[in-house]
Amino acid sequence: MTYSTDPRAVRSREAMLAAARQLLRHEGPGAVTHQRIAQEAGVGRATVYRHWPQSEKLLVDAMGGAELPLFKDPEPPVREWLHRQLRRMADELAVPTVAAASLTLAQSAIWDAEIARRYDESVTTISDRIHAAVRSAVESGELTTDLNASDLAVVLVGPIVYRTAMQRGLVPDALIARLVTGIGTWHT
Amino acid sequence: MTYSTDPRAVRSREAMLAAARQLLRHEGPGAVTHQRIAQEAGVGRATVYRHWPQSEKLLVDAMGGAELPLFKDPEPPVREWLHRQLRRMADELAVPTVAAASLTLAQSAIWDAEIARRYDESVTTISDRIHAAVRSAVESGELTTDLNASDLAVVLVGPIVYRTAMQRGLVPDALIARLVTGIGTWHT
Repeated sequence: MTYSTDPRAVRSREAMLAAARQLLRHEGPGAVTHQRIAQEAGVGRATVYRHWPQSEKLLVDAMGGAELPLFKDPEPPVREWLHRQLRRMADELAVPTVAAASLTLAQSAIWDAEIARRYDESVTTISDRIHAAVRSAVESGELTTDLNASDLAVVLVGPIVYRTAMQRGLVPDALIARLVTGIGTWHT
Repeated sequence: MTYSTDPRAVRSREAMLAAARQLLRHEGPGAVTHQRIAQEAGVGRATVYRHWPQSEKLLVDAMGGAELPLFKDPEPPVREWLHRQLRRMADELAVPTVAAASLTLAQSAIWDAEIARRYDESVTTISDRIHAAVRSAVESGELTTDLNASDLAVVLVGPIVYRTAMQRGLVPDALIARLVTGIGTWHT
């Protein structure tokens, strides 16, 4: 689509995006729907549809400027905290729109430098946060591991993405527990 | 696009698809290029571009009717064999067109029942083959594991997909070795 330069249209687009990011930050990607954005931004649902005919494009745009809520502010015991964060990620990716938006972002990032920059930022943020949490567990004596930041994300998040987005299946708690157990030696 | 019903156009499309599948089966997805298909099918390169303007759509169509070469015919020691297969998968997914085609397939499968059927078949084939290989390792006493077929694929293939398609990074042999080691207790 081409974007209107009518100041009112620009303002309403900004208001919708701001609402989308708020919803994403506070309630997760499952809440980023046309209806909720219309409510929060005070516009008609048809207006949201006119700007973003597809839910996943809407989510992609919202994700681009939003702070991810996942893997933030680790607290001990880190083993349980990691489990809860991965559980939440798995539940979000179980929503088809969220899985589709993640795949769309990943795919667009292969060819589009601007999307790649934004996408890489999110992927790096996830690695960094998981790494920070794991480091705090190592420092407190809860865990011993030799995995680096990007490998930690790969062995924890990769299986969740594959199960939800590729196998389109559920992630049982036992699988999450196994992934968390597998990153090193837990001393608890 | 709408497909021509001109018998010659249908024949040339079939010839190109057959060539694409041959290339995919024998040389892997990296070989499925407009140029190679034109050569193998005996048509002009412009004809291939006319049918599939984007490489990834071409690959998606070729994948739809092709037999995957990966994880076929396990041989002992299974630990080394699994390593080689995962190495090959990682190298293929390092080609941007292949990563994009895999993500396109996964994404289309979320909304399109026909693509979902074909895609699920491939995903299930990978699980089944890995499971067969692991079972043979268990039977020969090489390995003890409690993972089921779909969890095995998740913990072995998920990290490779995440590293290549999401982090867009390389997969070192050390990471593959760690994934293979992690599926159970190897008695060798």
